[in-house]
Amino acid sequence: MKIEEIRDPAFLRQMNTKELEDLCRELREYIIEGVSHTGGHLSSNLGMVELTVALHRVFETPRDKLIFDVGHQCYTHKLLTGRAGQFATLRCTDGLSGFQSRQESCHDCYEGGHAGTSLSAALGFAMARDARGGQESVVAVIGDGALGNGLAYEALNHIGDYKKPLIIILNDNRMSISANVGALHNSLERIRLHSGYRSAKSRTKAALRKIPVVGDSLVHGVEHIKENLKRLYLRDGALFEEMGITYYGPVDGHDLEELDAFLRVAKQSDGPVLLHVVTEKGHGCDFCRDDPDGLWHGVGAFDAQSGLRIQSGGTTQGRAISAAMLQLAERDERIYAITPAMTTGAHLTEFSRRYPERFIDAGIAEEHALVLANALALAGMRPFVTIYSTFLQRGYDQINHDIARMQGPVVVGIDRCGIIGEDGVSHQGIYDVSLLLPVPGIVLAQGKDVTESTRLLATGFAAECPFLLRYSKNTIPEGEILPEPLPLGRWERLYPGQDITVITYGDFVAEAEEARALLAHDGIKMGLVNARFLKPLDGEMLQTLLGEERPIVVYEEVARIGGLGSLVQQTAAEQQSRCPVHTLALPDEWLYHGKRREQLHRLGLDAAGLRSHLKRLLAR
Amino acid sequence: MKIEEIRDPAFLRQMNTKELEDLCRELREYIIEGVSHTGGHLSSNLGMVELTVALHRVFETPRDKLIFDVGHQCYTHKLLTGRAGQFATLRCTDGLSGFQSRQESCHDCYEGGHAGTSLSAALGFAMARDARGGQESVVAVIGDGALGNGLAYEALNHIGDYKKPLIIILNDNRMSISANVGALHNSLERIRLHSGYRSAKSRTKAALRKIPVVGDSLVHGVEHIKENLKRLYLRDGALFEEMGITYYGPVDGHDLEELDAFLRVAKQSDGPVLLHVVTEKGHGCDFCRDDPDGLWHGVGAFDAQSGLRIQSGGTTQGRAISAAMLQLAERDERIYAITPAMTTGAHLTEFSRRYPERFIDAGIAEEHALVLANALALAGMRPFVTIYSTFLQRGYDQINHDIARMQGPVVVGIDRCGIIGEDGVSHQGIYDVSLLLPVPGIVLAQGKDVTESTRLLATGFAAECPFLLRYSKNTIPEGEILPEPLPLGRWERLYPGQDITVITYGDFVAEAEEARALLAHDGIKMGLVNARFLKPLDGEMLQTLLGEERPIVVYEEVARIGGLGSLVQQTAAEQQSRCPVHTLALPDEWLYHGKRREQLHRLGLDAAGLRSHLKRLLAR
Repeated sequence: MKIEEIRDPAFLRQMNTKELEDLCRELREYIIEGVSHTGGHLSSNLGMVELTVALHRVFETPRDKLIFDVGHQCYTHKLLTGRAGQFATLRCTDGLSGFQSRQESCHDCYEGGHAGTSLSAALGFAMARDARGGQESVVAVIGDGALGNGLAYEALNHIGDYKKPLIIILNDNRMSISANVGALHNSLERIRLHSGYRSAKSRTKAALRKIPVVGDSLVHGVEHIKENLKRLYLRDGALFEEMGITYYGPVDGHDLEELDAFLRVAKQSDGPVLLHVVTEKGHGCDFCRDDPDGLWHGVGAFDAQSGLRIQSGGTTQGRAISAAMLQLAERDERIYAITPAMTTGAHLTEFSRRYPERFIDAGIAEEHALVLANALALAGMRPFVTIYSTFLQRGYDQINHDIARMQGPVVVGIDRCGIIGEDGVSHQGIYDVSLLLPVPGIVLAQGKDVTESTRLLATGFAAECPFLLRYSKNTIPEGEILPEPLPLGRWERLYPGQDITVITYGDFVAEAEEARALLAHDGIKMGLVNARFLKPLDGEMLQTLLGEERPIVVYEEVARIGGLGSLVQQTAAEQQSRCPVHTLALPDEWLYHGKRREQLHRLGLDAAGLRSHLKRLLAR
Repeated sequence: MKIEEIRDPAFLRQMNTKELEDLCRELREYIIEGVSHTGGHLSSNLGMVELTVALHRVFETPRDKLIFDVGHQCYTHKLLTGRAGQFATLRCTDGLSGFQSRQESCHDCYEGGHAGTSLSAALGFAMARDARGGQESVVAVIGDGALGNGLAYEALNHIGDYKKPLIIILNDNRMSISANVGALHNSLERIRLHSGYRSAKSRTKAALRKIPVVGDSLVHGVEHIKENLKRLYLRDGALFEEMGITYYGPVDGHDLEELDAFLRVAKQSDGPVLLHVVTEKGHGCDFCRDDPDGLWHGVGAFDAQSGLRIQSGGTTQGRAISAAMLQLAERDERIYAITPAMTTGAHLTEFSRRYPERFIDAGIAEEHALVLANALALAGMRPFVTIYSTFLQRGYDQINHDIARMQGPVVVGIDRCGIIGEDGVSHQGIYDVSLLLPVPGIVLAQGKDVTESTRLLATGFAAECPFLLRYSKNTIPEGEILPEPLPLGRWERLYPGQDITVITYGDFVAEAEEARALLAHDGIKMGLVNARFLKPLDGEMLQTLLGEERPIVVYEEVARIGGLGSLVQQTAAEQQSRCPVHTLALPDEWLYHGKRREQLHRLGLDAAGLRSHLKRLLAR
């Protein structure tokens, strides 16, 4: 069977074990080949091949509901539901999403992105089913990392109480993105390492071999072995059993027969079930299997044979900030680094090795990481918590209600700001500015280059208040790491304006410099201000700019509603300034996946777009 | 000992059981008397008297850290730490806060308000202690309701992994505000009801009686009985034990000797401990003990002898909306009502009785409630989720990433909007507008009176998109409940402007009407627009208003940064309108407790303030 010819997963139900194993091999090769061109999430998808095939064999989507938590591990699901033909467009502008997408397929009933939503969503689908008197199965596939998230726990607590059928597949690969942490993880580790597991497994395998796994025939054998399986495998699943959820496992996530048997047991259960499946990230691919730091979790293009990755030059703000953190932590032993499960993404591996006692991986638990940091700060420490902009949406209340209100001197690194590119709509870093500007008593800043970002980081540690520092993941030129404070709340006037003044910050300063050069050819003299502090505003400089009565354009890579532009416009309006102030920022609509530069261009937000915008304004 | 003379809790360590029992009685009477005048949280505080006394006997604040989750149950703690003299000013402007407050006392090391933060905070204090090599105890007191919150679980997961001493007091009163729900609750219920509990308790009591409970002498007996206690009491604490947290309990939370013994055991533990204390809400007060609906949870002034409550006339938007929900749910059986543990506060008791199968109490789990609602909506149901504005801060990501992105037709009731009054800084409903305006694809609305609010509710159910409806808890006149849709996105021009136009919404429409009458005496003709849809704006009417070039004042009871005013100012600026637009809203600073009307007056935001503001603007 050619992968491209798959329209619907129904054909799986006619295949025998040998055929299924061959198919899994082909799917795996197909994914490696595809991702080597487009980039994407690799190791998690390679770990999910057999499990996804087994799921589509036992359950019938779209009637049955299949929800992948986060959703970046659903490539096999995409290939089995008729999307192989577009796989070459994965994560490209107007191409396939890297996550489940309701617009793409009726087999995608819910969309993920952020961790821990699948269980609540599954309960919603189960409740609607029961209200209608439906019979379909509802299945959520969730990783061991995401299961440590508070939202997942809130749902478990409700699911155990609801008592009606709902299937949770715990995809336990001992890794979310970095190695997992926490008591739940330790509990799963105990189960996996239990000496009884191996012998029980071999006995079950022997039992299973006696039952042919073709079509639905195993169903008839299920009742017979169900209690037996449970008795063999149930060990320390007490955590789930205590919550009213029947635990089965652990199951080998790369053994199609074992998966098939257990999924059929789960399907026939009359209450909530958790099936603990142990998978291996990067399974079947030598170069990404042995990957303790999660380097093959999300990748750019690479050579599919050798695993050699295409290197890009330059650096990122995140790398510079982690380098500056090493210097600052050496000077000041009150400094901690805290990450919610993003050790590698936040470039904190070196920090964790050098200062293990001052490094905290809080797991996928943004809210907890922020409150923990606040208490550490109030107790005299100087924590730095780094969270991706999109995930900080989960921590808004902890910024407002905890850190800002109590004025804990926490430095929050807001990573992956701006247009996120290939990960798309669920991961955009474009809402944090409008979230944070209305919070009293905080500082919000962003640097234009490596040197300024590292200086702002040092400013944050010197400030005795909550300090939030934004930075992008874009590749930028190398520069000096200089962790020395800057004056708080002062903007930088890079070029005086003669015809029009642009106020911007972060990576857009370079973009504006480029527009300025283009406009010079048009005979337009553009002034440029680097608003490195979004809060507090540099009131004095803003006063000067408004007083000059030249048109001002606030140019920023965030949602236009509630951004810096709207605050400058509000300030101008309150002062009854005659100075016209415009905002050039992201429109009030969803922004999907694709390369950032393509999206900037399409939205008229790159240097060429800024140039056209200014010319149009001046021509009015 | 006179309660007002208490400066520090050290004196407790010299008292015997009889003296302590007398003190508890006096504290209880003092609290009832005080709260009968000021209003406040009553039943939870009455349940905490003995436990708080026992805590302050065994632990020495401020050296030891004592954190109350949420914090409205800390009145005894306030009285024991020298604040009785100000107790008559509880929750009043410039008076004592109703929660822990770092500004008030060095005995308050962390501040609460929202549920589930205490465990993360405790871990932060414990980590800072261990970094310094300190020896102090860190104690978090958390209710069984809050323990079901995801943030608390994220912290438990980390605490169990951290393994160093930290004491969790689970204050199990089977109620948070309404009766608790969820699998965790069921598990605790099993423990409480276990037949072994009573006999074990009597045996322990006998053992304890042999040891004098004066000063620290019990400590010497502790090691002797520690293992014994554990063996007697440990039952189904598997949930916590599995997470690496030693479980003790259940303990009678009104038995000073038992509490003392167990707290000393906990204090000497070399790892994390959870002590399960069973208390009774309203203990020692007949009229608020038997209270299944939580009517004595938070109260206004009442008669301290009879428990008769001072009734106020009028109604609230919340009552009107719950009445309209009954009508709408009768017409459309797809309609659900979902509340995160606020059945009584949201006036959903009648709904829960009439439509039990379409009523969902999700526990203190805003995030889960919203994702669950989204899935129900995508599966064809029409859920209404009601969440207080301040708690919706916890659900921002679920509004953006889940509901808005997937366009689930969920109606979200944002209750307790605007200035919250006596609960103060942690409970203000003034940030939701700036949070929500930048989210694409949502409708955000607020009605000026009962009739309009109920019409907007019906509009929400008719709309096929996410619909967020704000309303306050203020007492307003009765009116017709009219659940019939209004045209989406259309404002209402109440009075044409001649000198100046005010745009406002919600309860401020009435305030503006009052200002308009006052201004008429001043010879100023004020126009008035009811902007009942904050998103989408009524672009057509806004165009008309801007075209009239009269000054516009957007007058609103939310944070001024990012509110409707800033959006109108942004719109005017983009159109290069010559119409001056001002915002009259809350300043960018924290707003503490006190009566809403006093605060409006102080901030110049009542009718008189609006009048002065408009006169000043016109005089410029």
